[in-house]
Amino acid sequence: MKIDILTLFPDMFSGVLGESIMKKAQEKVKVTFNVIDFRKYADNKHLKVDDYPYGGGAGMVLMPQPIFAAVDDLTKEKIKKPRIILMCPQGATFTQEKAEELAAEDHLIFICGHYEGYDERIREHLITDEISIGDYVLTGGELAAMVITDSVVRLLPGVLGNEDSPVKDSHSSGLLEHPHYTRPANFNGLDVPEVLLSGNHKNIDLWREKESLRRTLKRRPDMLDKIKLSDQQKKWIKEFEAENI
Amino acid sequence: MKIDILTLFPDMFSGVLGESIMKKAQEKVKVTFNVIDFRKYADNKHLKVDDYPYGGGAGMVLMPQPIFAAVDDLTKEKIKKPRIILMCPQGATFTQEKAEELAAEDHLIFICGHYEGYDERIREHLITDEISIGDYVLTGGELAAMVITDSVVRLLPGVLGNEDSPVKDSHSSGLLEHPHYTRPANFNGLDVPEVLLSGNHKNIDLWREKESLRRTLKRRPDMLDKIKLSDQQKKWIKEFEAENI
Repeated sequence: MKIDILTLFPDMFSGVLGESIMKKAQEKVKVTFNVIDFRKYADNKHLKVDDYPYGGGAGMVLMPQPIFAAVDDLTKEKIKKPRIILMCPQGATFTQEKAEELAAEDHLIFICGHYEGYDERIREHLITDEISIGDYVLTGGELAAMVITDSVVRLLPGVLGNEDSPVKDSHSSGLLEHPHYTRPANFNGLDVPEVLLSGNHKNIDLWREKESLRRTLKRRPDMLDKIKLSDQQKKWIKEFEAENI
Repeated sequence: MKIDILTLFPDMFSGVLGESIMKKAQEKVKVTFNVIDFRKYADNKHLKVDDYPYGGGAGMVLMPQPIFAAVDDLTKEKIKKPRIILMCPQGATFTQEKAEELAAEDHLIFICGHYEGYDERIREHLITDEISIGDYVLTGGELAAMVITDSVVRLLPGVLGNEDSPVKDSHSSGLLEHPHYTRPANFNGLDVPEVLLSGNHKNIDLWREKESLRRTLKRRPDMLDKIKLSDQQKKWIKEFEAENI
């Protein structure tokens, strides 16, 4: 997979792309990152990339020309059109399903603005996706592009080795994870639940399933609407609700 | 404000904290960042920070000792307890309201795990908040901590200068932004809407208000449930709905 990132702050990416899973992914040649300062595509003498908004108002707006020119350059030898993703607080909210969809692509181009607006012609005539990572305001699209890159790259076959596999991914099973405990069995007077030390794997599995359900009911009851509950799970839910009385 | 970040990958933060708004915020001495490799707090010979889960299963679990020791050290001279925030996919979903709440604090401590689980005693007996930045799986809590840091720091008084103010923040007004346009008025045959070139500011404001509403209705109708619509806005909504027929 090839990932191009258009930004005015290319240095922001060095730490994140050079460490941990991202670093390993590149070493295994599963993915190449290309962080591009799109200022170099500006066709004006002062390499200006933004200008005042038509109609007046505060703030600056990214001009269409440098962005169109950059995407043009990055796609000129391509037969298949890449996904061209605008990082934008008004976009569709990013989800794990979207991460899986993007992980099946060969080429992603991220466009990151930074405290400016985007000229509407970029939205209407250039991009394939507008994505927001959540309902909060960031100073720019760079962190959002890093978040999406991270969530997509870890899904590529061979990127996560066994040593890196998550205990169990929240958001991919339909329920939140059960609690985890590790050594010591007693830490500052705080004990690990007896059952986990019992060696009885049937009981351990049952405890984990139940605590996973309890946590989901308590924290994210909305997630339960999306799965089909077993009879055992329904019984447990009644039990949890009775305990609250 | 003081922001401490506990991580096993401190190098991930250099690019993001050293650039743009984050850099300016530090220069103006509004905020100090302290990125700490919590491995140094491990009290075992090999500086091990994780171990196998009690009860068996794949993956590793972060041990309570190094995290408790790190937080202890960072808070030993404090009278007021800081917010101690666990980055966790099972936490409450981050929002702009939460960013505003955190921006009022003096001291934040972020705890970032990385493809391990957390020992439950960390959750139950140490932290004040568990936060997730969205319903997707990341390789670690580091990017989530950067996202929250960015959204909080930009809210601190004096951090955003006039030159940096966003045209208008989505998610802080209740409606999505209207479209923006800048030079040239015609780009590759694509025109800027006439009204924005008219100089008639009453008409421009009206167009922007209407397009802001249109975009919100189209992309995020859920946001309209949270605001009180004016009579004009209700009329426009009827108009948009009629256009779709």
